[in-house]
Amino acid sequence: MKIDKKHIEHHNEQLKAKHQRAFDYLAEDITHVEEIIAKLEKFQIAIPSWALGTGGTRFGRFSGKGEPGTLEQKIEDVGLLHALNRSSGAISLHIPWDIPQDAENIKALAASFGLAFDAVNSNTFQDQPDQEYSYKFGSLQHVDPNVRKQAVQHNIDVINHGIALGSKALTVWLADGSSFPGQLNFREAFQNTLESLKAIYAHLPEDWKLFVEYKAFEPNFYSTTIADWGQSLLLANKLGDKAYTLVDLGHHLPNANIEQIVSLLLMEGKLAGFHFNDSKYADDDLTAGSVKPYQLFLIFNELVEGMDARGIDHATGLGWMIDASHNLKDPLVDLLQSVDAIKLAYAQALLVDREALKAAQQRNDVVAAQEILQNAYRTDLRPVVAEARLRQGAALNPVALFNELDVRNKLIEERGNQSVATGL
Amino acid sequence: MKIDKKHIEHHNEQLKAKHQRAFDYLAEDITHVEEIIAKLEKFQIAIPSWALGTGGTRFGRFSGKGEPGTLEQKIEDVGLLHALNRSSGAISLHIPWDIPQDAENIKALAASFGLAFDAVNSNTFQDQPDQEYSYKFGSLQHVDPNVRKQAVQHNIDVINHGIALGSKALTVWLADGSSFPGQLNFREAFQNTLESLKAIYAHLPEDWKLFVEYKAFEPNFYSTTIADWGQSLLLANKLGDKAYTLVDLGHHLPNANIEQIVSLLLMEGKLAGFHFNDSKYADDDLTAGSVKPYQLFLIFNELVEGMDARGIDHATGLGWMIDASHNLKDPLVDLLQSVDAIKLAYAQALLVDREALKAAQQRNDVVAAQEILQNAYRTDLRPVVAEARLRQGAALNPVALFNELDVRNKLIEERGNQSVATGL
Amino acid sequence: MKIDKKHIEHHNEQLKAKHQRAFDYLAEDITHVEEIIAKLEKFQIAIPSWALGTGGTRFGRFSGKGEPGTLEQKIEDVGLLHALNRSSGAISLHIPWDIPQDAENIKALAASFGLAFDAVNSNTFQDQPDQEYSYKFGSLQHVDPNVRKQAVQHNIDVINHGIALGSKALTVWLADGSSFPGQLNFREAFQNTLESLKAIYAHLPEDWKLFVEYKAFEPNFYSTTIADWGQSLLLANKLGDKAYTLVDLGHHLPNANIEQIVSLLLMEGKLAGFHFNDSKYADDDLTAGSVKPYQLFLIFNELVEGMDARGIDHATGLGWMIDASHNLKDPLVDLLQSVDAIKLAYAQALLVDREALKAAQQRNDVVAAQEILQNAYRTDLRPVVAEARLRQGAALNPVALFNELDVRNKLIEERGNQSVATGL
Amino acid sequence: MKIDKKHIEHHNEQLKAKHQRAFDYLAEDITHVEEIIAKLEKFQIAIPSWALGTGGTRFGRFSGKGEPGTLEQKIEDVGLLHALNRSSGAISLHIPWDIPQDAENIKALAASFGLAFDAVNSNTFQDQPDQEYSYKFGSLQHVDPNVRKQAVQHNIDVINHGIALGSKALTVWLADGSSFPGQLNFREAFQNTLESLKAIYAHLPEDWKLFVEYKAFEPNFYSTTIADWGQSLLLANKLGDKAYTLVDLGHHLPNANIEQIVSLLLMEGKLAGFHFNDSKYADDDLTAGSVKPYQLFLIFNELVEGMDARGIDHATGLGWMIDASHNLKDPLVDLLQSVDAIKLAYAQALLVDREALKAAQQRNDVVAAQEILQNAYRTDLRPVVAEARLRQGAALNPVALFNELDVRNKLIEERGNQSVATGL
Repeated sequence: MKIDKKHIEHHNEQLKAKHQRAFDYLAEDITHVEEIIAKLEKFQIAIPSWALGTGGTRFGRFSGKGEPGTLEQKIEDVGLLHALNRSSGAISLHIPWDIPQDAENIKALAASFGLAFDAVNSNTFQDQPDQEYSYKFGSLQHVDPNVRKQAVQHNIDVINHGIALGSKALTVWLADGSSFPGQLNFREAFQNTLESLKAIYAHLPEDWKLFVEYKAFEPNFYSTTIADWGQSLLLANKLGDKAYTLVDLGHHLPNANIEQIVSLLLMEGKLAGFHFNDSKYADDDLTAGSVKPYQLFLIFNELVEGMDARGIDHATGLGWMIDASHNLKDPLVDLLQSVDAIKLAYAQALLVDREALKAAQQRNDVVAAQEILQNAYRTDLRPVVAEARLRQGAALNPVALFNELDVRNKLIEERGNQSVATGL
Repeated sequence: MKIDKKHIEHHNEQLKAKHQRAFDYLAEDITHVEEIIAKLEKFQIAIPSWALGTGGTRFGRFSGKGEPGTLEQKIEDVGLLHALNRSSGAISLHIPWDIPQDAENIKALAASFGLAFDAVNSNTFQDQPDQEYSYKFGSLQHVDPNVRKQAVQHNIDVINHGIALGSKALTVWLADGSSFPGQLNFREAFQNTLESLKAIYAHLPEDWKLFVEYKAFEPNFYSTTIADWGQSLLLANKLGDKAYTLVDLGHHLPNANIEQIVSLLLMEGKLAGFHFNDSKYADDDLTAGSVKPYQLFLIFNELVEGMDARGIDHATGLGWMIDASHNLKDPLVDLLQSVDAIKLAYAQALLVDREALKAAQQRNDVVAAQEILQNAYRTDLRPVVAEARLRQGAALNPVALFNELDVRNKLIEERGNQSVATGL
Repeated sequence: MKIDKKHIEHHNEQLKAKHQRAFDYLAEDITHVEEIIAKLEKFQIAIPSWALGTGGTRFGRFSGKGEPGTLEQKIEDVGLLHALNRSSGAISLHIPWDIPQDAENIKALAASFGLAFDAVNSNTFQDQPDQEYSYKFGSLQHVDPNVRKQAVQHNIDVINHGIALGSKALTVWLADGSSFPGQLNFREAFQNTLESLKAIYAHLPEDWKLFVEYKAFEPNFYSTTIADWGQSLLLANKLGDKAYTLVDLGHHLPNANIEQIVSLLLMEGKLAGFHFNDSKYADDDLTAGSVKPYQLFLIFNELVEGMDARGIDHATGLGWMIDASHNLKDPLVDLLQSVDAIKLAYAQALLVDREALKAAQQRNDVVAAQEILQNAYRTDLRPVVAEARLRQGAALNPVALFNELDVRNKLIEERGNQSVATGL
Repeated sequence: MKIDKKHIEHHNEQLKAKHQRAFDYLAEDITHVEEIIAKLEKFQIAIPSWALGTGGTRFGRFSGKGEPGTLEQKIEDVGLLHALNRSSGAISLHIPWDIPQDAENIKALAASFGLAFDAVNSNTFQDQPDQEYSYKFGSLQHVDPNVRKQAVQHNIDVINHGIALGSKALTVWLADGSSFPGQLNFREAFQNTLESLKAIYAHLPEDWKLFVEYKAFEPNFYSTTIADWGQSLLLANKLGDKAYTLVDLGHHLPNANIEQIVSLLLMEGKLAGFHFNDSKYADDDLTAGSVKPYQLFLIFNELVEGMDARGIDHATGLGWMIDASHNLKDPLVDLLQSVDAIKLAYAQALLVDREALKAAQQRNDVVAAQEILQNAYRTDLRPVVAEARLRQGAALNPVALFNELDVRNKLIEERGNQSVATGL
């Protein structure tokens, strides 16, 4: 299924008057509204190939329908999203769930939807049917050099797939760790992981980056070998200039101040980018902005401040990805909501009066600092985000149009009820 | 496979001298050691039928081998455990994973291993292939009365299976809840759940109990409709005298004082019993006593104190069950370790000098109170627990004998490599 | 110091045009805006007498200046707040920090500022110089009946002070608990607390309420005897119809779903009301809405829904209080920010399309439910809250006017630099 | 007060027979028991000068009696502890609470009790009466260079005091951070802190170390500028070879795996040492080993393994200190319990069969690894720790002897009821 431009135009036509009134109201007050819009237009959030199907938990999975059964269908799904919001112009593949058998055709298909290939992701947290050694007790950390070698080779294969598609980064998330005290030697697990990452790093093309993700717990329940930003940064520093730390919002201990971590990683020049999602308890993988929208804003507040301080281009300097698991919502709608919430938080951060904030901080005016942040946050910038979409030819209300066009049922018609996507 | 008594005798013979020395050393100091042993001998912990196979997480499952593929084989597995430790004399079935097609034969088989049937467990957190309505959005809480009715009927079916087997309790654990703010009305979800539970309660035989389990989060990630002991107790009180609150150690928010909850539920006469396991982060379902052994002791300290205060028989008054997920260890060995850790904690609690403790509490002597508890906890009571096993004809060291007898490989020989148990 | 009406009028005059434009813009879309305003006008949040001075932590206190040194000055301070926002029309006294020596004069003084007396608060978590028995090991829970008797008598004294002032509720917050395993018997501590509360309850006038507050931890670090809503509700139910559970936002374990607790307490007819504040880690006592504004909205969403379902008057049915500790901000400004954030959250909750939400819940439309809630939350309702203030004769921007009038310096002039308020 | 050797001898005489039996029983099984004892004898844990008085919380303080009112009396108190356990042979001073006016005399006094001076501690988290600039908004991080300069100078003063006394390390714990989003710029706060620490580091004598402590939260409630081990390590690495990361057990987010952090800091050669205490919820500052004794053991397990791997001397290579707040117990008894729990955990770690553990780890035998650790942990090593004390001329049971000798009452007689120690 493809979304016809006429549908978008028709949809926008109907909402136009109401939108214009709202936008005009805001534009009168925001002197740099055009600058904000320009930045919003450039801002793209990559969609992970594994998030296009219904997710589940260890207690089961309630399948949706019309899921993309092939890589081609996944690309088609991201194409749908991008047509609706013009902000999802990239796809992040996960190997071996999405091995591109014919890279050229896949690239051409993606290009036909205006999509690029973002970071590629390796998987050494599951065993594949034909695999020689098991990852039950880890992969890059494993005590057996044969297992490490196999896992390194898999990452090299993933890089090669990425090269063929035009990706420029490899994301390594490891489940490696332990579930019981005594199970492993922390230092040796770290050193083995470092050596394995070095072997992978050595195969990285000159213009590639290595994103080292961290996670506090799950699926291992006593220790994770790359458990926090400190451990990831230690590895990234030992690896070299192309290695960076990737932040997933759900991968922290309770109450962690993620925005501070973001700021410090930017300070060190070592922030890779993000896996956006939201959570209340653990790695809940919920829609971005659905539980803690103020935290999302505070993170973007640090991002904007820190990127500007280092002269990093907002659109291209870091990796922006979603990593969520859509257990209850239609995956495509969930992704539309996530992208929208992310762009709203970005817009709010762009609205912050940085000079006034800096001045308040310099005089320790805590009240004023809060007022400045919350003034930006409380301003209803949805019309500004919508205006950016409008100018790009996207829908004023992507979720509404998705429903109006009955997209899911059309996909079910095309793909059938039983089609199931690979992923979690 | 059955374990021959001769193997146990042979094993014990070899360890006897060392054991005797250790036991004699302890017995000289512990005046009521015989009383402790007598209680340990009676204390049985039920094995859940779903914990006999390799567990997994949403990120995958690394299968073990020789898993029990049928209910008969599961009973055989528990029989093995019970032969080794004489403390696992009951099995807790989970429907529909373990539907007893021929209850009489199943009962006879279990009896041949000296096993009884503990609480039966219903499952409305997963959809079954032939099911009319989905539990995607809950079961007993569901907005649609048809779904609730189906879920109620399932519980009644489970009761009927339990009656046929001689069970005396139904455990209801509900995944019901929501993953996003706004998804449900908390009050109506609670009321629907209450009405559904009432319908189930109405089918409970006179001598049965209803165990209402609670859990803070997972698989729902914003709210759980029976999320804490307060909500479970509220329901139990509204249901009636046969309804009780079941405590699973992993089902709490971070830092919860579980032993206090246990004490208060005993005070209210509403403690059903336990699902034992251990955890560091969430519902990790690790081996009991493997992460927080002092907490396990403190819980038993409250149990012994509270049961004695109410005249509850330690062995029969409450339900003692394990609920763990064996992702990395051989499930049978994991269960042997869990049972052993539980009995050790029970023995330590029995060693606490209650009069001295009460006196210290009465004079607010915090130092003495800690010394009294830790004196019991720090005493190495493994020889006393072993002595209880010895007298019952079990192995002095069940884990060691399991390894010596090469039990797992014999099961693999019998069942093959591919046999997979139902469960999580 | 008193704030002259002319100052407010002048301030409003200057902001009027900008405000009117913003309000008109909103009013066009919100059909029931007048209803919202009417409710906002009636909504009053009580100011605690102990929050008018600079707070501190166990690591120290950085005193502010011009703090109210007497009860009269405290009333004057609340009068200032109320003049600025017309939403702080009550004061909640804490005994023995604020003993009204001459109740009639104090009442008259308060009346002159338009202030009533909200719930009175007892203090048995600190020893007073002239006290016979120490509360080091608890008060209402204490093993020594003499200590309990003394603590009960103190609460009766507090009720009597409250009667003289026209209060209608007693808030009991207990630090009672233990810091070490074994220190106390949980059951006996609970029973002692219950007996003590019964003795207090017996002295409650017919039209009074008893608010039983709970707190997870601090200042006791192993157990708190009224630690969670379940324990508070258990007590309230055993006490009788006049006993209720009071919720303080900072008194929960990490990740607790407070809005669900609120909903269930309303369902049970046992919600007393609130101590508003905000927190990231523990009982941080920060400005309401400064860290988790969406949570505050979600709580009000349940409050509005639940109060309407039970026919509870929003303004008078429950107790609305702030309980914060102003370590870094001017206490008066902090309170202005808190009141404003609370009213904004209330306004957002009033904007929620309840019929649409209910319909979405009935069809399990999780996406729509989220959109409905977030549509209300993302709408910038500050002009509506300001309009309510304007109509009441309060300042359009209370914080700005506080600064313009240089209130703090005028208070310092009147009271001196060294004036220190009683409190935490 | 001094403890006469004869009292100790008499006490030991009475317990000797029972002890000997217990020790002999153990010694027969533990082949390297003499090696363990030798290490225990050398192991000294420094006592912080601020922990000799009754602690409190922000809600108040319940004073004890006979507290040391002067530095001389504090040294006398540590002398008492050391006489009782021969394991507290050092004192860690806190400036300005304990300014040694006459260093030579103070040194001589300490030497008379066999005490050395451990790390000195600076305090820039409180304002002192005569201080020019306030630390309300931080010290080393402060936006105002004058404040930073003052705080740096204070640290230099502390170093000078330490030099005079023979200390070899400065511990810097900073409360610096923020309580509200927007209050400070994380990056600039970090950079200011780094620059300030560099200025302090420049004044460090050649043979000194700088211990950089971290803490997740409190007294700041939104961010702490040195909040976790990653931030501390980043600073330590930027500072140089003499800078190290200090671990306080209570300074972590919920569920943090502290033993893994310890292992990695040892790997990096950057572990300074410890502030021992215990906690359930936050920085509870409870007696070491009173809440999570298994965690304490697991930490020592990593310490022994990691120190041996790097050839670090157990007794002198790292800094061993207690940092607790004795709100409910007699401070001296609390310290005796803490030291004892620490030595017990150390002894258990020394008992771990390292070769067997390594072998189990190499074959991923998770069950065996757990059995090996728990075998050491469950063994009752109190007689071995007591034997080490006995050989050093300390008391077999220090807490019991403290009570027998009625030490506290004698101190009250000497010092009076009103004597209050400086500290928290």
